[in-house]
Amino acid sequence: MGRALIIGAGGVASVVVHKCCQNSEVFEEICIASRTKSKCDALKEKLGGGKTKITTAKVDADKVEELVALIEDYKPDMVINVALPYQDLTIMDACLLTKTDYMDTANYEPLDTAKFEYSWQWAYRQRFEEAGITALLGCGFDPGVTGVFSAYAMKHYFDEIHEIDILDCNAGDHGYPFATNFNPEINIREVSAKGSYWENGQWVETEPMEIKRVYDFPEIGEKDMYLLHHEELESLGLNIKGIKRIRFFMTFGESYLRHLEVLKNVGMTSIEPIEFEGKQIVPLQFLKAVLPDPASLGPRTKGKTNIGCICKGIKDGKEKTYYVYNVCDHEECYKEVGSQAISYTTGVPAMIGAMMVMTGQWKKPGVYNVEEFDPDPFMDALNKWGLPWKESFQPDLVE
Amino acid sequence: MGRALIIGAGGVASVVVHKCCQNSEVFEEICIASRTKSKCDALKEKLGGGKTKITTAKVDADKVEELVALIEDYKPDMVINVALPYQDLTIMDACLLTKTDYMDTANYEPLDTAKFEYSWQWAYRQRFEEAGITALLGCGFDPGVTGVFSAYAMKHYFDEIHEIDILDCNAGDHGYPFATNFNPEINIREVSAKGSYWENGQWVETEPMEIKRVYDFPEIGEKDMYLLHHEELESLGLNIKGIKRIRFFMTFGESYLRHLEVLKNVGMTSIEPIEFEGKQIVPLQFLKAVLPDPASLGPRTKGKTNIGCICKGIKDGKEKTYYVYNVCDHEECYKEVGSQAISYTTGVPAMIGAMMVMTGQWKKPGVYNVEEFDPDPFMDALNKWGLPWKESFQPDLVE
Repeated sequence: MGRALIIGAGGVASVVVHKCCQNSEVFEEICIASRTKSKCDALKEKLGGGKTKITTAKVDADKVEELVALIEDYKPDMVINVALPYQDLTIMDACLLTKTDYMDTANYEPLDTAKFEYSWQWAYRQRFEEAGITALLGCGFDPGVTGVFSAYAMKHYFDEIHEIDILDCNAGDHGYPFATNFNPEINIREVSAKGSYWENGQWVETEPMEIKRVYDFPEIGEKDMYLLHHEELESLGLNIKGIKRIRFFMTFGESYLRHLEVLKNVGMTSIEPIEFEGKQIVPLQFLKAVLPDPASLGPRTKGKTNIGCICKGIKDGKEKTYYVYNVCDHEECYKEVGSQAISYTTGVPAMIGAMMVMTGQWKKPGVYNVEEFDPDPFMDALNKWGLPWKESFQPDLVE
Repeated sequence: MGRALIIGAGGVASVVVHKCCQNSEVFEEICIASRTKSKCDALKEKLGGGKTKITTAKVDADKVEELVALIEDYKPDMVINVALPYQDLTIMDACLLTKTDYMDTANYEPLDTAKFEYSWQWAYRQRFEEAGITALLGCGFDPGVTGVFSAYAMKHYFDEIHEIDILDCNAGDHGYPFATNFNPEINIREVSAKGSYWENGQWVETEPMEIKRVYDFPEIGEKDMYLLHHEELESLGLNIKGIKRIRFFMTFGESYLRHLEVLKNVGMTSIEPIEFEGKQIVPLQFLKAVLPDPASLGPRTKGKTNIGCICKGIKDGKEKTYYVYNVCDHEECYKEVGSQAISYTTGVPAMIGAMMVMTGQWKKPGVYNVEEFDPDPFMDALNKWGLPWKESFQPDLVE
């Protein structure tokens, strides 16, 4: 079929590369590019030898001219952006200049404000239309599959959806008293930021972790979950017609929250350097050095994730509820691609989204969120490529 | 009256110096000596000008010959040891060689084993007897006043004491989410060590923090307290005739324990260095640098301590209970001597113990624990010198 340029060489990129190589009919050639070429070469070495032809390149994704040069040299059919969210706009600029289709998994965040929203990327709509190229935004699991799930519910089961609750449960246990999947600073920001949800056409703000619910997750059991702001609320609020309320809940264990709170209390999460033995040291950086390396969690994480959408609305004049979700097993993911479920559930939808664009099923000039396309081929692909979903028509509802 | 050599210049030493200066009839001259002479000079500068004549000296209390030289030069009537517990034996050796009376507040601990018991110091009995000098051991609050309280109860209120519960409550609040009065490593060792109590002539060992009780402390209110091993159990078990059980309880707040547990979990209390930016750094040392400086707690600590003994036994054939305790206010201590109650309640009994020896009221050749002397003059002195005590004949008992 064609060739894709994958920008990024982290945990999600690794899963994307694995899945592209499994899907060599679509991804005949891929180029893995990142600032650290050795990481790309390591991935190539691990996966090369199959049908997909892999090359690697060094690129600084902050620099449009470097990106343009690489794209002009490699001539990919599309760019799969699994680099840092700070780099979405430079990569989109390079795609515009080279008229190349674009896809990412997380929306743009300016480095300095930590405020994420779609406005920056939606501002590219007209330019992408005029260039005749497609930008597919936020095609991981959440955002991503959660938008596809919502569109699928709307298409097949409802005349109107009034409420959506997105539930993200990670019941993985790595056996450490405390460890983070990524930068603990981001974790801390998550739980100390105000929450918000979309209701009757506007945002309702909550105190941090103010709204807590207990939910009995299929195949997992009861877990505490907390209402957070999450980026797909913004696009679903616009794209699901008639929607009255959308909320996002994520599970956090009591022990995880306790550890985070204490570390914050004592100052270990501070980014203000302190003087220590004649050296300036940032406490958070030192904490990261003491905590288990996130890369070491993969082989030891057991348990499952369950991410899905509960929809409530009207069909043929009657009230109806619908729950669609995926359950993913950390150990099985690790066996298959050498990453646990957090990276797997983001990387697989990224590969599928890229396939949708490459095969022309989700291709039209402009900038789009996943729920604006036909969900059916994506839903089939989830079942085929490792993220099978299940439905329930009498789910427990979230109060 | 005479001159005392005070070895040590830390928090407790500072209180001892303050109180000796208040009591210049007994302490006409004192010499403050420690490894860091500037600390001694700072104390002298703060307190000099009163009737007590203060001098200072530099001494390494690990070195018997340095101690002997200092004692021979200063010719004190006694040595008040408020240095580190590791240094008790070298200081006792120097007192033997110079035939000088000795006193300390905490029993000897070898640096490498962290096991404290009296055996090392009791082994000096015969030599002190033969030298005709007095060693008074463990004369702070606990051990110290708790032994005097026990002896006082025995002398005045009981024919036999069958049970003693020593209750140490610190309800001080420094306003920080977490801070330690001293080395957090010692705190952690305390709560992670096995507990023990004395029953029917032998030690009963418990799991760390296994035995928890809630007690309604006079002038403070209900607090959680935990059974710990404590050094006075060893001497009281021998010196209080007929005793069947002695236990020691200390209060710890839920939040304090939670913080300590998390810091241990994440590895921040480890003394194994880790590699950080090309440097070997001990996590516990870094944690100490992040936490509030213990010296900064004094001016901000509010609330009270309550330390005392509940005795149960027989008088004139009838069962009887008796509770004797001191309540000390952190802010008042700070106002008086510039230290909060933790140092104050140790330093005041040390001055009183030294006074007992200097005035001859507690002077006889040998090595003694406080409960082996007449408690009455000490009890009077407590009332006079800032640690007044109260009695109750119908106290709540500890289950």
